[in-house]
Amino acid sequence: MKLFRKVTVIGVGLLGASLAKACKERDLVDKITGYGRNLSNLKKAKDLKIIDNYSVDLSEAVSDTDLVVLCTPVLTIIPLIQNLVSQLRPGTLITDVGSVKDPIVHEADKLVTEGNFFVGSHPIAGGENPGLEASCSSLYQDAKCIVTPTKKTDKKALKQISALWQAIGMNVIALSSEEHDFIFGAVSHLPHIIAYALMNSLGGLKTSNNLEVTGFSGAGLRDITRIASSDPVMWRDICLSNRNHSLNLINRFQKNLEEIRNSIEREDGQELEKKFMAAKKCRLNLI
Amino acid sequence: MKLFRKVTVIGVGLLGASLAKACKERDLVDKITGYGRNLSNLKKAKDLKIIDNYSVDLSEAVSDTDLVVLCTPVLTIIPLIQNLVSQLRPGTLITDVGSVKDPIVHEADKLVTEGNFFVGSHPIAGGENPGLEASCSSLYQDAKCIVTPTKKTDKKALKQISALWQAIGMNVIALSSEEHDFIFGAVSHLPHIIAYALMNSLGGLKTSNNLEVTGFSGAGLRDITRIASSDPVMWRDICLSNRNHSLNLINRFQKNLEEIRNSIEREDGQELEKKFMAAKKCRLNLI
Repeated sequence: MKLFRKVTVIGVGLLGASLAKACKERDLVDKITGYGRNLSNLKKAKDLKIIDNYSVDLSEAVSDTDLVVLCTPVLTIIPLIQNLVSQLRPGTLITDVGSVKDPIVHEADKLVTEGNFFVGSHPIAGGENPGLEASCSSLYQDAKCIVTPTKKTDKKALKQISALWQAIGMNVIALSSEEHDFIFGAVSHLPHIIAYALMNSLGGLKTSNNLEVTGFSGAGLRDITRIASSDPVMWRDICLSNRNHSLNLINRFQKNLEEIRNSIEREDGQELEKKFMAAKKCRLNLI
Repeated sequence: MKLFRKVTVIGVGLLGASLAKACKERDLVDKITGYGRNLSNLKKAKDLKIIDNYSVDLSEAVSDTDLVVLCTPVLTIIPLIQNLVSQLRPGTLITDVGSVKDPIVHEADKLVTEGNFFVGSHPIAGGENPGLEASCSSLYQDAKCIVTPTKKTDKKALKQISALWQAIGMNVIALSSEEHDFIFGAVSHLPHIIAYALMNSLGGLKTSNNLEVTGFSGAGLRDITRIASSDPVMWRDICLSNRNHSLNLINRFQKNLEEIRNSIEREDGQELEKKFMAAKKCRLNLI
């Protein structure tokens, strides 16, 4: 079933290209237009039939479209909305896939003019390999997608955006943008910060005989630091956009780490076991 | 080729049972005796033909054996050596699989009497699922095994112990026990401490609308906290046995985390990107 006549994907990377592929596979859209700054990437996307056409001119790319999906780094989303909003025909929907929602949805609400509709989205999908090359039509299948309506959000627009994510296999959940940023600050942003900090602690660390400690790493270290190979620019912007939650959650983690450190320092085996046991219980509930 | 006539495995869990299976598969040993405190576990091991016989009496289990391999938690290794050393016939070899080596090898050197030989080993193999049930003959295949000879270590004994690990597919590396504990404090013990602390930080954490944040976890959080489901008692003992390195490495990590925190607080994107980039580079070198 067709959901839209024309969709414009802004940023044809891992998320944008995977969305386009998923829409094509399910025949949800008549025509997909790509926009981006990298002409050769857009050409490649067209050659691979991921998109039907493209433009490096933003107003051309969004004119006469039903839906604009912003699939670019979080800090570029508001400037792009600023530039494209006056180019839209009335009735156009806008959504994004940014990992931080509160600053985006509040700015977007101010920018989007009467007759057009913005709904913030965060499909929980991705991977540490970026770009078109890593895209696939099943990226979103069976994953959660958070939508973050505000008081200003149009109910029909929210339904239409939710229907798109559902049509490509996602489980759509509505949260306030504030609640979203707290949750993903905890389960996603904090783990990335920790993985980067751990890698910084071990990189270049040598023994007295000049052996690099990382030469002895095993599956445990590889798993715990997998996300440290994520895009530094993307994660810089996420951390800065979600600054307050990031800082509070780092504090919370530091307090827990300090408590474990104190138990080791005091050689308090009973307390240490209690803490490790609580962590294990919580980890088993994750699965 | 037979390496030993009779081997006694003390502790028939994941590591002990996997060693027995690997030796049997390669026909390295005439007879494998199991010792442990849990009679039903020993019976099961015999029924499954992992071991040839067993005893719950330590002196009986080690009498007339060529090699004793201690596969029990780190803090039990020295007390066990204390109890078994007087029961050995002259020429018996002893090794262990403990994850911390410095306190063990120095105590063992003092305890093991003239004519018997101790060599500390740490095969880098395991998994978060414990016990006989999780054992397999290929657990050690292609993994590293650290041996930690001291000034007192007999050269021939070191060769014989190394030959055993090599025969079951391991890449044997000799390090000082001090160097071993620093390295594995960094690449193994610190990551476990961090995974436990992260899980403690998120367990039970709720939003203002009473949603559990861990209900929104994805692959990133699952990977970074996988090792938090490891045995709390085993890791309590490892952290306490490697106390000084653990404390210093936690300090080092806390410093790196604090630097990232400061960059976020100051909204210093350039510095934050630099730190994330350095971490990513180091992570890519891990593979």
